[in-house]
Amino acid sequence: MSRPQLIDQIKQKRTFLCVGLDTDIDKIPEFLKSYPDPVFEFNRRIIDATHDLCIAYKPNAAFYESRGVNGLQSLIATYKYLPKNCLSIIDAKRGDIGNTSDNYAKAFFREDISEMGFDAITVTPYMGNDSVTPYLKYDGKWVILLALTSSVGSKDFQYLETEGEFLYEKVIQKANTWAGADRLMFVVGATKSTEFTNIRKYAPDNFLLVPGVGAQGGSLQDVCKYGMTPDCGLIVNSSRSIIYAGHDENFADAARAEALKLQQQMQAELEKAEII
Amino acid sequence: MSRPQLIDQIKQKRTFLCVGLDTDIDKIPEFLKSYPDPVFEFNRRIIDATHDLCIAYKPNAAFYESRGVNGLQSLIATYKYLPKNCLSIIDAKRGDIGNTSDNYAKAFFREDISEMGFDAITVTPYMGNDSVTPYLKYDGKWVILLALTSSVGSKDFQYLETEGEFLYEKVIQKANTWAGADRLMFVVGATKSTEFTNIRKYAPDNFLLVPGVGAQGGSLQDVCKYGMTPDCGLIVNSSRSIIYAGHDENFADAARAEALKLQQQMQAELEKAEII
Repeated sequence: MSRPQLIDQIKQKRTFLCVGLDTDIDKIPEFLKSYPDPVFEFNRRIIDATHDLCIAYKPNAAFYESRGVNGLQSLIATYKYLPKNCLSIIDAKRGDIGNTSDNYAKAFFREDISEMGFDAITVTPYMGNDSVTPYLKYDGKWVILLALTSSVGSKDFQYLETEGEFLYEKVIQKANTWAGADRLMFVVGATKSTEFTNIRKYAPDNFLLVPGVGAQGGSLQDVCKYGMTPDCGLIVNSSRSIIYAGHDENFADAARAEALKLQQQMQAELEKAEII
Repeated sequence: MSRPQLIDQIKQKRTFLCVGLDTDIDKIPEFLKSYPDPVFEFNRRIIDATHDLCIAYKPNAAFYESRGVNGLQSLIATYKYLPKNCLSIIDAKRGDIGNTSDNYAKAFFREDISEMGFDAITVTPYMGNDSVTPYLKYDGKWVILLALTSSVGSKDFQYLETEGEFLYEKVIQKANTWAGADRLMFVVGATKSTEFTNIRKYAPDNFLLVPGVGAQGGSLQDVCKYGMTPDCGLIVNSSRSIIYAGHDENFADAARAEALKLQQQMQAELEKAEII
């Protein structure tokens, strides 16, 4: 999905919500266990209930890999079911040298060999340039690079000062020399909404993928106040607060109700910024 | 495998070689393609030909993931075939927040649910503490944290100076507060052998996993001169120069010949240091 298509989807659907499919087989409603692939069945119903309220889905690879071959099959089935008008993000946080990253790119971008052809992948920056450029060989695909995360451990290294700047600022500046805002996004943890002003100095046009709104307590209003651009420039993710909103046969309705709340707040923000 | 067991294996076998199973289906001998699982068949023969010359095997996850379900099945079969007296390392370079890392730990450590129970996993440090500690809940398992890599992009961030030190030095210092040298190793690229003296200031006892000797041109003698400890403290990896030493039906013999050369050099280094 290209940047103009993404912006168009945001305007049409009046939302910049990403639904995180961090589907844990131990947390899904009991009645789904009788299906051949309970995790896919859960995801299918979540997608059916939310696809008009969001512009992206983001399965986190770990939740599928933890179940071995069965988990990978759930992930492939989920990928295939994702609506084409939503940005499909694999949250894999990969990062390795060039020829290895070529293989991760195949794993998640080459549907002809791996059965999965996501639009975007999250990547970790520690190994530098090599970790990122192999994904950029694929026209129309996105790299979403970790910059500032909402993890407890983000303070361990991301906030180290170097040449008068924080490491995460260096990551953004350096990565923006490797690709443009039409191919590169950054992960920015929403628990630090006052940092957005700072980040926008170095990433004025990049879309930012913002986790941590909802269950982790970030404020959508703050994120928009400091992070929104004339093109919106934000994809705000919510995982647990949507997908685990209900625990019984009505879980998909409960998920829709939560997603709708966020969509309505997002619509209000888009209107306030005169984007729609 | 515990630290005393690892040291014991090094002394018994007179080697500290790790064979990297970065098995690319496009690079294996043509005649293997008629087997039901050509990649496993390749790995099986490499393992049969080298297991007395090395103390560790390290499949790189990307080379398996790139082939989807078939690739994962090759990886599982390879894991199951690894000899128990060799340290089994999954080179996955994962790194995510706590509950996600819990799932990656299941994916690679919990044989009962994922069919794989590696002894060690490589982890990327960018997200800090959360990325590392979930793996340490598993008694007897190792985290091998990226510190200084042999990638071209290592200079992008790993060499940034912060508080008078390089980022990779900070990573080593900080991580050594999370676990002891009986659970934590570091990846240190062998193309920078003069850095070993520096690294040993902060990691006097940790085992270092050293890629880049062989195909990438690092010097084994330099690595040992600056990096070896009284317990050896080194696991030196070679992938392509061993596994692709031959290209026809004798590929396993060619791999053995290359591994033997390295084992003999390593034995000489162990003798010189009076470890054996």
